[in-house]
Amino acid sequence: MLTFIGLGLYDELDVSLRGLEAIRSADRVYAEFYTSRLTGTSVERLEELYSKKIHLLDREDVEGDPEWINDAIDHEVVFLTGGDAMVSTTHIDIRLRAERLGIKTKIIHGASIISAICGITGLQNYRFGRSTTIPHPYTTKSGKTMISETPYETIKQNRENDLHTLIFLDIDKEKGCMSIGEGIKLLLRVEMERNEGIISEETLGVGVARAGSPTQVVRADYLGELEEVDFGAPLHTLCIPASLHPIEAEALVAFADAPREILQKRE
Amino acid sequence: MLTFIGLGLYDELDVSLRGLEAIRSADRVYAEFYTSRLTGTSVERLEELYSKKIHLLDREDVEGDPEWINDAIDHEVVFLTGGDAMVSTTHIDIRLRAERLGIKTKIIHGASIISAICGITGLQNYRFGRSTTIPHPYTTKSGKTMISETPYETIKQNRENDLHTLIFLDIDKEKGCMSIGEGIKLLLRVEMERNEGIISEETLGVGVARAGSPTQVVRADYLGELEEVDFGAPLHTLCIPASLHPIEAEALVAFADAPREILQKRE
Repeated sequence: MLTFIGLGLYDELDVSLRGLEAIRSADRVYAEFYTSRLTGTSVERLEELYSKKIHLLDREDVEGDPEWINDAIDHEVVFLTGGDAMVSTTHIDIRLRAERLGIKTKIIHGASIISAICGITGLQNYRFGRSTTIPHPYTTKSGKTMISETPYETIKQNRENDLHTLIFLDIDKEKGCMSIGEGIKLLLRVEMERNEGIISEETLGVGVARAGSPTQVVRADYLGELEEVDFGAPLHTLCIPASLHPIEAEALVAFADAPREILQKRE
Repeated sequence: MLTFIGLGLYDELDVSLRGLEAIRSADRVYAEFYTSRLTGTSVERLEELYSKKIHLLDREDVEGDPEWINDAIDHEVVFLTGGDAMVSTTHIDIRLRAERLGIKTKIIHGASIISAICGITGLQNYRFGRSTTIPHPYTTKSGKTMISETPYETIKQNRENDLHTLIFLDIDKEKGCMSIGEGIKLLLRVEMERNEGIISEETLGVGVARAGSPTQVVRADYLGELEEVDFGAPLHTLCIPASLHPIEAEALVAFADAPREILQKRE
């Protein structure tokens, strides 16, 4: 049996009782923290809570040749991830591989920024369109810096339908966790090149750092201001809201220190 | 201090360690289970786990005159809900009222169907458009049965953008929890009246019952077939996928017993 367990948003206390029970009774514990990360804890602290050794997997172990899956043929194996389990396509691929090997699979869910963002910001779930990720720019062989336009396209599509956009910021082994400021700069650069008027320095954004932690920071402001805010340590997330329902505007002012004038801009 | 705590998907074991700790150390414990419900447990079992009395709130206590909030002025009060906390607009309203009374608020997040649906079905998070709820039909004073067209509109908008739709099914004190079959019937009835060709009995749907529980059922089939499936006890959720990525089709066949022919229908 292979059980996927989502550890939740921030540290070792965000696991569910069901998840903790499954980890403690497992024969073997694997974890990957490259698609999401528990920034408030360490592998050592997790091991102490579980009284188990954690076998940490890197991208190659997960996406290349995941030989470790074979352990689940005749052992109870748990696979730990940050956030909710199985939101990443990579995990679905592992589950499919396991099923092909005749291994039973199960999921124990954890809290995810996908739902947490609603409570944290006051933006309503049914007003969100599709979500997107801003990847780090990369340099081609000829030395050209490439910036993905997909996040911009997603924001454009959502705004055309008057929907909010939740934006994940890249987590990269070498380049690190992208900050809210870096993400905004990349979006504004795409806007500058395409000049379609989808976003500007005057567009309202909401930045969330360390969601679900005691040091969580939530701040709503115009992108030109927001990109200068120091949100501190990762993980960071960004929202670009569409038009605001009065209660959403009120929540952003109360919980995210948004400029009070958004209370007047009722659409 | 007023702390909103999401209890997760199914029973008393879905709370996080952080949530449990907060409940056990609270001066007073309130809960509402009308916007979401833990179908795998009872108030008595929760009280036993917490060693606390739970004060159960109904809609009137929460939305009418929530006098109980005043307890949080000088006590540690926790407010429990199923799923993640604060996804419902009602909860945001309570948080705003609390802030106006000078009460500090905090959220401890729990697993939600909003993210769980990805792992359960294999449908990818970034392919979902906005979500929607199918409410029970109601009868006007003149005896006419009214069926909301909002869910249909949402599916239409999402399909136009090639995005999946997550559909919540109404939870009503009198009319009960809507089943997947009832939800599908209502959608097809709207289609019959509007005749816009958005969905039909041949449209693929995915039904999920008792998400996150040991008796979870996931089933993908054409709506005409799916509406006849007995999914058992609540809560039920429905997805209407857009075009499928090959790995999504494979996941639906492997995890949701979808008709194998969807593997051929690559768009």
